[in-house]
Amino acid sequence: MFIGNYSLKVETNGRGTYEITDKIQAMAGRAAANSGLMSVFIHHTSASLIVCENADPTVREDLERFMARVAPDGDPLWQHVAEGPDDMPAHIRSVLTQPSLSIPMSGGRALLGTWQGVYVWEHRTGPHTRQLTVSMLGDQPG
Amino acid sequence: MFIGNYSLKVETNGRGTYEITDKIQAMAGRAAANSGLMSVFIHHTSASLIVCENADPTVREDLERFMARVAPDGDPLWQHVAEGPDDMPAHIRSVLTQPSLSIPMSGGRALLGTWQGVYVWEHRTGPHTRQLTVSMLGDQPG
Amino acid sequence: MFIGNYSLKVETNGRGTYEITDKIQAMAGRAAANSGLMSVFIHHTSASLIVCENADPTVREDLERFMARVAPDGDPLWQHVAEGPDDMPAHIRSVLTQPSLSIPMSGGRALLGTWQGVYVWEHRTGPHTRQLTVSMLGDQPG
Repeated sequence: MFIGNYSLKVETNGRGTYEITDKIQAMAGRAAANSGLMSVFIHHTSASLIVCENADPTVREDLERFMARVAPDGDPLWQHVAEGPDDMPAHIRSVLTQPSLSIPMSGGRALLGTWQGVYVWEHRTGPHTRQLTVSMLGDQPG
Repeated sequence: MFIGNYSLKVETNGRGTYEITDKIQAMAGRAAANSGLMSVFIHHTSASLIVCENADPTVREDLERFMARVAPDGDPLWQHVAEGPDDMPAHIRSVLTQPSLSIPMSGGRALLGTWQGVYVWEHRTGPHTRQLTVSMLGDQPG
Repeated sequence: MFIGNYSLKVETNGRGTYEITDKIQAMAGRAAANSGLMSVFIHHTSASLIVCENADPTVREDLERFMARVAPDGDPLWQHVAEGPDDMPAHIRSVLTQPSLSIPMSGGRALLGTWQGVYVWEHRTGPHTRQLTVSMLGDQPG
């Protein structure tokens, strides 16, 4: 059964990864599906979703360094610079990562692996309010 | 509830982005879910799906320039050149972007953000007919 | 309707692509949905999912060569080297590809295109046991 769509707002403080694992686990708990699936969607084109190792913060730092190397801010290749040097890299980083993620649920929990965290990756250098929708499907206790 | 799987055909005229936002909104309207989720799947390995800024066309031009830099046509690295210099770059671009997208729906509309468009990205230089399936789930009015 | 979540285990023998198309087709057959959707999720951050051309093995070899060029093992850029030179590249490759895939089903089959195979991409150089969950949704025969 389709349980519902639920909004989630994430305030970012500029470029970087913002973990939402606890928030989506709380939403899974409220949906209370014995068995199900959640789909997370971000309503933006300059911030995206990733599932990433959540133990060592240098992993996400290295992801930033990687992206800065392949799609640098202010690269003379970019024509689209309307909102500044980080504008086009933000769109590229978003296209290379995920606008939506689907995660199985069981017993009111998202079934993430031991080292998996779910993150909003803010690609703009300034702070933004990011809107997400979490869609919940599954069997709820009778 | 599961509403159904619906076919969508997109004729491409060579490499580039082809917006399908209006088409999937029309399909969402016919599915008429009060609240639901759509999943879009592309049945190919040399064309893919992206959610991208749909206001300024230079964004998609810059995406092309970016991909041409990281995975150039005719790069001597490619062994797989059976169908020409754009063959292997098309597979790489597809793997780096999306074969499937899940988008929440409400009131018979896909809940896209203000600047979000959904695109088929044709990665081959020649024209192709691309097949997609849109799966619809949700609650329909009683 | 939500049919269920099913586990799938894939033993890898080090870096490379491991086709799971036959396994997920068998799971689709057991779910026996007339019409539906499957979502495949991998519970790891150093192995990922791709849909890729399954006819010519040089395609996947070239994907390896591509990733080795953009995110080389032992690159001095990486701070995160706790588990060796392939540790951080494995996280980057995972983030650039897919943690989850949604594929339509009909008549007890995943509706893959003619040349589409589904692969677990092991990004670590050593062997690993990889856990996946396949979520099945759809209409089953009455």
